[in-house]
Amino acid sequence: MAKEYVSMRNLRFVLHELFQVEKLTTYQRYADHTKDGFDLMIDSAKQMADTLLHPIYREMDDNEPKMGEDTVHVHPDMRKIMREFGESGWIACQEDYEHGGQRMPATIYGASNFIFHAANTSAASYFGLTGGSADLIGTFGNQELKDTYLAKMYAGEWQGTMALTEPHAGSSLGDITTTATPAGDGSYRIKGQKHFISAGDHDGVDNVVHLMLAKIPGGPAGSKGISLFVVPKKRPVNGELVANDVKTNSFEHKMGMKGCPIAYLIMGENDNCHGWLVGEPHQGLKYMFQMMNGARISVGMMSTALSSAAYYASLQYANERPQGRHVSNKGQDGPMVPIIEYADVKRMLLFQKSIVEGCLSLVMQCSYYEDMIRVTEGEEREKYQMLLDVLTPMCKTYPAEMSLLSTSQGIQVLGGVGYCADFPLQQFYRDTRINPIYEGTTGIQAMDLLGRKVTMKGGKAVMLFGAEMQQTVMQAMQDEKLKPYAEKLGASLQKFSEVTMKLMGLAQTQEPEVFLSDATLYLENAGILCVAWQWLKQAIVVQEKLAAGQSGDELAFYEGKMYAFKYFFEYELPKSIGLVKRLMSDERLTLEMSEAHLN
Amino acid sequence: MAKEYVSMRNLRFVLHELFQVEKLTTYQRYADHTKDGFDLMIDSAKQMADTLLHPIYREMDDNEPKMGEDTVHVHPDMRKIMREFGESGWIACQEDYEHGGQRMPATIYGASNFIFHAANTSAASYFGLTGGSADLIGTFGNQELKDTYLAKMYAGEWQGTMALTEPHAGSSLGDITTTATPAGDGSYRIKGQKHFISAGDHDGVDNVVHLMLAKIPGGPAGSKGISLFVVPKKRPVNGELVANDVKTNSFEHKMGMKGCPIAYLIMGENDNCHGWLVGEPHQGLKYMFQMMNGARISVGMMSTALSSAAYYASLQYANERPQGRHVSNKGQDGPMVPIIEYADVKRMLLFQKSIVEGCLSLVMQCSYYEDMIRVTEGEEREKYQMLLDVLTPMCKTYPAEMSLLSTSQGIQVLGGVGYCADFPLQQFYRDTRINPIYEGTTGIQAMDLLGRKVTMKGGKAVMLFGAEMQQTVMQAMQDEKLKPYAEKLGASLQKFSEVTMKLMGLAQTQEPEVFLSDATLYLENAGILCVAWQWLKQAIVVQEKLAAGQSGDELAFYEGKMYAFKYFFEYELPKSIGLVKRLMSDERLTLEMSEAHLN
Repeated sequence: MAKEYVSMRNLRFVLHELFQVEKLTTYQRYADHTKDGFDLMIDSAKQMADTLLHPIYREMDDNEPKMGEDTVHVHPDMRKIMREFGESGWIACQEDYEHGGQRMPATIYGASNFIFHAANTSAASYFGLTGGSADLIGTFGNQELKDTYLAKMYAGEWQGTMALTEPHAGSSLGDITTTATPAGDGSYRIKGQKHFISAGDHDGVDNVVHLMLAKIPGGPAGSKGISLFVVPKKRPVNGELVANDVKTNSFEHKMGMKGCPIAYLIMGENDNCHGWLVGEPHQGLKYMFQMMNGARISVGMMSTALSSAAYYASLQYANERPQGRHVSNKGQDGPMVPIIEYADVKRMLLFQKSIVEGCLSLVMQCSYYEDMIRVTEGEEREKYQMLLDVLTPMCKTYPAEMSLLSTSQGIQVLGGVGYCADFPLQQFYRDTRINPIYEGTTGIQAMDLLGRKVTMKGGKAVMLFGAEMQQTVMQAMQDEKLKPYAEKLGASLQKFSEVTMKLMGLAQTQEPEVFLSDATLYLENAGILCVAWQWLKQAIVVQEKLAAGQSGDELAFYEGKMYAFKYFFEYELPKSIGLVKRLMSDERLTLEMSEAHLN
Repeated sequence: MAKEYVSMRNLRFVLHELFQVEKLTTYQRYADHTKDGFDLMIDSAKQMADTLLHPIYREMDDNEPKMGEDTVHVHPDMRKIMREFGESGWIACQEDYEHGGQRMPATIYGASNFIFHAANTSAASYFGLTGGSADLIGTFGNQELKDTYLAKMYAGEWQGTMALTEPHAGSSLGDITTTATPAGDGSYRIKGQKHFISAGDHDGVDNVVHLMLAKIPGGPAGSKGISLFVVPKKRPVNGELVANDVKTNSFEHKMGMKGCPIAYLIMGENDNCHGWLVGEPHQGLKYMFQMMNGARISVGMMSTALSSAAYYASLQYANERPQGRHVSNKGQDGPMVPIIEYADVKRMLLFQKSIVEGCLSLVMQCSYYEDMIRVTEGEEREKYQMLLDVLTPMCKTYPAEMSLLSTSQGIQVLGGVGYCADFPLQQFYRDTRINPIYEGTTGIQAMDLLGRKVTMKGGKAVMLFGAEMQQTVMQAMQDEKLKPYAEKLGASLQKFSEVTMKLMGLAQTQEPEVFLSDATLYLENAGILCVAWQWLKQAIVVQEKLAAGQSGDELAFYEGKMYAFKYFFEYELPKSIGLVKRLMSDERLTLEMSEAHLN
């Protein structure tokens, strides 16, 4: 097991130097917090991760859950983990005081979440899902639901889930067939099947509470007729838990994330599955999207966390593994050198560092917008909401897609042993492969960006977002050392805006399939620009710190940041040129061709 | 299990229409063959793969080998597979008649190897390694070694291996410490340890024959003092097999290729491990490189095979899975459409097709050069040898690296189920991850290309290779439909040649670290150009076929080729622009920075 999986120094840089989170304490919602308090939270997160999560990362992979009589048997520590994260307040942390929460800012929770997932992403999913689904009940549920479920969920005694997918309806949620029929007593009778429900059943908790999408018969067709229900595995009746006719039929064997089972549930086989409506009928998708948007940002963070864990594991190996000699050592004699001394190994490590620290900054930008939405009002709040809406598809997708490459480079640094189970690299690689699929695939995110977010409010949201990036460019132009990079990003933004104009033109004159046909490439390009923007923001701060004078480890830290920043601009940003070239082309191969051409 | 894993129609296109393999029969070595005979061989390969290999692809993954008392227990079918591939002549097929071979051309063997690895890459590795190591004994061994080993190995009764790597010497072979001390009886006593030996021990055969690198004490230091030995697990003594003091200490648990164990061997614990020298002392690395070069081409083929299997599995799913409706269907009503109808799914499939068929063509180009080396002499032979030498790093690396992305897109087409064990996509993804590491990592290949092949014979080899590509460009320029693509490739070649000139200039004025620092990007760029070249070659043939008039499935086949060809030029070739941009830059980040900057 690698010694380290995150850089606490870099987390403090992001929180305090880049986003200056202590400014949040000037708003009333966060007025009880202090900078030191934030640091204590992060340090406590690290300690929880070190002691409870990280030690069993491999064990949870080696020992897959097992189907039992009435539940799924997971790693025996999961019960302790759920309870300890509950009792120490992590599951409820972002909530208001009256729900037992701490009003923890999204940025601080995001940083903690990063640590938890880097330590053990399977284990962190259990309580992450519980917190998200409890928050959903807290926001949209009635008092009875809150009274019945929140305390148990926030205590980590009951698991919460998102139950959306059905065997025949994944991306196409409008086609779900699970029904919820009014029972006349204020509850509903649920009938149907759900698939791929993460932590959908296990013996680490006393009950499982599904936040489930279903259709009330007679409601509107498609996605307009979806309602949200609380459907527990066991329903509380007079203080007792009674089986609620939710059967775990099976769970899937997966290539990664093995520690967290995804269940196939059958509800209402005996017509005795009770569900309770959350909020208004037919508003389920809208409610669920509160959790979904948070979940998308969380996927960006999980991906970045796995890239981080892979980076530090491969960095440690590169420092310790002697092999061969420098090419300038003509006789190829003398002792072997640690592989970190080779340019190509440094390149592989620097690539990982530029992805980890670039993506972390991007995801934290979203968390920062979330916080600003919580503390502002009116037009200002609307501005932050638009910025968050536009940035979410990139925040979900770029870290997820790049984590495939970044963890892969981690394996490559180790060579053959990276492929072997005795080193964790191959587990990071397997675990992260789900991230471009979770919570809306890359293709779905691309449609969301180009088909919805770009055109939203007459293009106002994208303009706002472009202005944010432009502002960073203008600021960096003032610094002679950063000016060449600012110019590069400025030029790339200009090209990208030409692409957007061209596609919007197509949108007005042709079927929507045409302008959306390469939406995935458009999203990829946008992701590169967003991370370049975040790196430029970081570089501005770093230049200030260097100008103030640094020495020792701190000097190395800031210089290292500059190398990773330059790496991104030298090796990653140029990929945008090829993407623009394609996006400006009028060859519509995928629309012209038929299925027969693929045989 | 997916129905299909290769396209036999495309294999016939590559063999007969693109490379016109029947022309090989005009040379004496291949004069006994016919075009129909070649087709029978390929069909027989497909049948062997269908009946023996493909049915147990998943079983071999689900049931990892187990360490026994004296051997490693592998899938029980491996004994039958080894014997049947031996008896039907596949292991010896490329050899001369006197060794029981069929003088099968490298192109035909390559096509068969493609089928075997697409069907079950773990199983195909056992007999592929056996054939390669037997061929090595056949080429460099004395008559006694040939008499003792070849018949049993070619019959599939004894396994052959490549035993190079040691725990402390992987890429740095000059540092191996296994010793071979002359015993005075013509044999040597071997002492040392070998690591990562594929099929290094198993119960599917009666003996294992290691082609092992070791050092004779007193010989030259480093890689100049390496000799090649035959070291059997059991040595034949008076017609009996006697234990030869080769102990299998353990085997590694890996993320993929689970069906084929990689062994950790300890030789000479009881000072009773006998080895026999192959050829001359201290020439071992040179001999081994005959097998190694073949193995590198084979890795290109294995990677392409896995990309192919993933492509057809995801294509089948896309045709069968209904989900959602077209965006132009405003009401989002009516029946769901199969996902293959979506532009983004077509793009993911077309990407895979362009990689599979482009890489297959590239690897077959190497096999074709191998055949021409076998049948020509003098200057002509030297020309083909140079072309093969230059092309090998791209042939090994581009298909290997792209198979990570291509099998990943295969998963993505399936979405969540692609991550699950019930579908083979995740196994292709895991299995192929070793390919950029096998037989010299991507970084090692890059050093080979830029540090050795480009400068070889005063640059003559690269010039020859450039001329080959240029010839295809000139030919395509004659066709109005292909001219725009020929111009694109021509321009990319021009840019790449400027990069080469610049790097050669650096090589003459600065330490070798400088011009080699981005060798991996240089290799990536070269790989893209090589596959673009192969696609242009294919397009020339396709245009001739279309001009001759086609209908039905044949028309769809050729049109499909044109779409995949255009895809490569529209989506993949532009990646070269960003790479050139970086390669022309003078920022030497990885050389300037120190290890401390990576913390």
